[in-house]
Amino acid sequence: MLSRGLPSNQSMKCYSDFGSKSCSSLFLRQSSPISVNIDKMNLNFSMKNVVRCGALVAENSHTFLVGKKFQLDDVIDGQQFDRELLSNIFEVAREMERIEKNSPGSQILKGYLMATLFYEPSTRTRLSFESAMKRLGGEVLTTENAREFSSAAKGETLEDTIRTVERYSDIIVMRHFESGAARRAAATASIPIVNAGDGPGQHPTQALLDVYTIEREIGQLDGIKVGLVGDLANGRTVRSLAYLLAKYYNVKFFFVAPDVVKMKDDIKSYLTSQRIEWEESADLMEVASMCDVVYQTRIQKERFGEHIDLYEEARGKYIVDQKVMSVLQKHAVIMHPLPRLDEITVDVDADPRAAYFRQAKNGLYIRMALLKLLLVGW
Amino acid sequence: MLSRGLPSNQSMKCYSDFGSKSCSSLFLRQSSPISVNIDKMNLNFSMKNVVRCGALVAENSHTFLVGKKFQLDDVIDGQQFDRELLSNIFEVAREMERIEKNSPGSQILKGYLMATLFYEPSTRTRLSFESAMKRLGGEVLTTENAREFSSAAKGETLEDTIRTVERYSDIIVMRHFESGAARRAAATASIPIVNAGDGPGQHPTQALLDVYTIEREIGQLDGIKVGLVGDLANGRTVRSLAYLLAKYYNVKFFFVAPDVVKMKDDIKSYLTSQRIEWEESADLMEVASMCDVVYQTRIQKERFGEHIDLYEEARGKYIVDQKVMSVLQKHAVIMHPLPRLDEITVDVDADPRAAYFRQAKNGLYIRMALLKLLLVGW
Amino acid sequence: MLSRGLPSNQSMKCYSDFGSKSCSSLFLRQSSPISVNIDKMNLNFSMKNVVRCGALVAENSHTFLVGKKFQLDDVIDGQQFDRELLSNIFEVAREMERIEKNSPGSQILKGYLMATLFYEPSTRTRLSFESAMKRLGGEVLTTENAREFSSAAKGETLEDTIRTVERYSDIIVMRHFESGAARRAAATASIPIVNAGDGPGQHPTQALLDVYTIEREIGQLDGIKVGLVGDLANGRTVRSLAYLLAKYYNVKFFFVAPDVVKMKDDIKSYLTSQRIEWEESADLMEVASMCDVVYQTRIQKERFGEHIDLYEEARGKYIVDQKVMSVLQKHAVIMHPLPRLDEITVDVDADPRAAYFRQAKNGLYIRMALLKLLLVGW
Repeated sequence: MLSRGLPSNQSMKCYSDFGSKSCSSLFLRQSSPISVNIDKMNLNFSMKNVVRCGALVAENSHTFLVGKKFQLDDVIDGQQFDRELLSNIFEVAREMERIEKNSPGSQILKGYLMATLFYEPSTRTRLSFESAMKRLGGEVLTTENAREFSSAAKGETLEDTIRTVERYSDIIVMRHFESGAARRAAATASIPIVNAGDGPGQHPTQALLDVYTIEREIGQLDGIKVGLVGDLANGRTVRSLAYLLAKYYNVKFFFVAPDVVKMKDDIKSYLTSQRIEWEESADLMEVASMCDVVYQTRIQKERFGEHIDLYEEARGKYIVDQKVMSVLQKHAVIMHPLPRLDEITVDVDADPRAAYFRQAKNGLYIRMALLKLLLVGW
Repeated sequence: MLSRGLPSNQSMKCYSDFGSKSCSSLFLRQSSPISVNIDKMNLNFSMKNVVRCGALVAENSHTFLVGKKFQLDDVIDGQQFDRELLSNIFEVAREMERIEKNSPGSQILKGYLMATLFYEPSTRTRLSFESAMKRLGGEVLTTENAREFSSAAKGETLEDTIRTVERYSDIIVMRHFESGAARRAAATASIPIVNAGDGPGQHPTQALLDVYTIEREIGQLDGIKVGLVGDLANGRTVRSLAYLLAKYYNVKFFFVAPDVVKMKDDIKSYLTSQRIEWEESADLMEVASMCDVVYQTRIQKERFGEHIDLYEEARGKYIVDQKVMSVLQKHAVIMHPLPRLDEITVDVDADPRAAYFRQAKNGLYIRMALLKLLLVGW
Repeated sequence: MLSRGLPSNQSMKCYSDFGSKSCSSLFLRQSSPISVNIDKMNLNFSMKNVVRCGALVAENSHTFLVGKKFQLDDVIDGQQFDRELLSNIFEVAREMERIEKNSPGSQILKGYLMATLFYEPSTRTRLSFESAMKRLGGEVLTTENAREFSSAAKGETLEDTIRTVERYSDIIVMRHFESGAARRAAATASIPIVNAGDGPGQHPTQALLDVYTIEREIGQLDGIKVGLVGDLANGRTVRSLAYLLAKYYNVKFFFVAPDVVKMKDDIKSYLTSQRIEWEESADLMEVASMCDVVYQTRIQKERFGEHIDLYEEARGKYIVDQKVMSVLQKHAVIMHPLPRLDEITVDVDADPRAAYFRQAKNGLYIRMALLKLLLVGW
């Protein structure tokens, strides 16, 4: 983790959400009581002061609520999170769910500006972050093609780009094609950096939303059985998920993958070192019948290069279809990081145990929570 | 039309526009009267409750006005609109015109998020929709190149993309290269879809703004004479306009087109079946002298492929210039969907009967009206 | 300069900034005093009117403050600015600095819509303008690739594009690849145009932020010694800066450039005609020891075409490094328009006299000031 003091212009920032809190409780935090002198002789009194109060509440919403500082300065990788922190973040995500549903005009992040600095396209992730910011009343500066950022094209370093963009914004959400880029950015920036995926490296908000989804859907994280299916060799998602779930008790993993994209030894060793049970299986039906979560993934064609035959073989091997659903337990769910091709058949979508679109929505709540925490604290 | 219940998170949404309505009338809708107890002994009373009211009005602007539900769930094609609906929408468009001119800080759509999902570039249409949303206090998520949407590029279906984007937004404005795409999106989505053009298919908001412009400029739609000029074979615009105007009484069409891009038989048959008079003419001067509206269009080079000679011949044939203007009636107008090349000479622009830029502006009002109606009702 | 009356829908616009002004003084501008009748018999009075006031203040913020009109209709080139105007703009920029630091929810430009019409990418400049607009509560419509603006691609003139975009927005910030394009746009538009660079032409906001930075860093503009270093032949920045600083007294320039990119005669003649001292030097160390400002620039590889050898030679010649810093006076500063390659070594960044990132931030303040002045006046 990068250690760094709170940037000076952050420490004074604060928030209020009139939609989710009662205004009277809010107002108790205002130190100087406001009063109106009423001239008894003339009860037609001027409303100047009254209106001034209204204006104070409506416009100076940044001046009287300061949340307890979030313990992270940046969100760079999954290792930054332990059980307790995850649990607290998930509680904020639940609050965000309520805000998104009931308080369409939330102003929690009013006056804050997020820059989305994407060096490779990822519209889904970008829209999710931008929606999160706007749902909380914040604003967004967008660069979809930061790689063509005229400065980057001219040879500017990432560090210089960050030093410029941080002067225009309050938080930077960054997607990069190089592993470690987010960490370099965080080391430079005096405003929070959120890693929205750096090449083969990390994509921590995806990992968090996956764990959050399991907790929401299954009700617990300890003691769960999770089947990871599909491309386990290249999938950043399933690897990160395995790392994060290893923090919980009595989790058991089943790996179901075509031979060419089997789970790598590093994760297996790590799980073993954490006393997490795992086994490999070639029988998706059996695994599905035992698991609480079947986490299906896409076989990534782009990883196979010219070996289209191997791709085609791997691709069709483990499909989640009605047959799989028929053995899945009633309380269990199917997850998928999306996009989905044909590894889950479309007729599964209507099944209440198909959780993948709810999972996408949870990404919104997790990102709302992280933006809120990084910008205005707990 | 696609039938579908109001999505659950829509039914509770409502709006207020402090700019265009008197606040006192607004406040009458608040059910519980708010009062302040004044301690007679101490007229220096606390303002907590007063301020709380101010905050309620300023921040909870979504909680006390619900418009009557709009009868359409989506805007997909021109066939969804009949005379009465058009007339009512045009009235809202007029109100939007007043809001845009007098209430720059309108909050009618505050807290609403529109996603512009454009699978092919159309900056003019995109900016028009985004301006409409922002003029009403709403927010926008933009994808200019949804075709490169990382997921679409990876083979994700339109349906899956819609299911994801609808979780980040309240309404989707969609441009697609395939006819029927908007209808497929609407069948999937639980939030409103607005078709901003789907390939050779429909572009209903363009058709509506055209009809709205004629009514604004001429004062009526029944009994008008309309000259359609230019590329009548390929122009989606003129074809849609002919369909829509066929709903009015005693409309007469004149088709003025180079041979290679003549109006097709399907429209002619349709008009005949609706007892709408039409005739073809090769004499733009004569037509211009008789019509209330001369609707000029661009000859689309891209339709001619290698036949550049045919394009050049067709292109120069019917030009609206000062000579045409000299025979145009005083109350008549020239319209054009833009962009314009040289089919209307630049010196015509200063003529008050040149309505094409006003027409572009009307697109803003029509889109404001539709977004308002789809999101918060009448 | 383009003369033109204030567009009609502009003259009535006004602003308020609750963050930076006391509300009571604001309220004095409201002409009709608002009062509440309190029924003596029933001090439990209705709060309807009180709340109405709150709503008025919170929502109708556009209706009671009108600034004195800004004397420029558009910002097209550096020649529009004289000493007095610059000084007044700089004062507004200082106010913007305070607003950006202390009033995150400023609403000065609430309800205003800026279109960024960029015909060539310049993400840095675009983000700076968009941040400026959003920091003042305004909204933005973005076109990153106006060159592919479907209409421009189809052959639409710049004038027609402007006539369309001005109907969707209140101000247009425009970047173009052709010199003079901004002036053509301004001649057409009825809303303000800001030139954000037009090819080899002008980039006036860069010139203003440079002069503003010198005044902020050195404390004065008269009597300063400025070393211009690097590509003085092609650098639009240094040429504009020389023109603007020529308006001040006793300024002295030192030109330090590789032979192939020496300062051209037109600037030299102009400075001489203005009785501004200048001299050429090949000794960066000596110049650095005498100057108040060393303005370093990037040698632009793209100007050398196939002559990579000349580029490489020119590039390494004048580097600002610790050795240069060791002779630089204590009060002096290093400036650079960014992006920087290796013409300033990274170890210089930590020196308090390295002003280039502060300079980038000043661009934000200058742009906030210009947007504010063009839209709502002084």
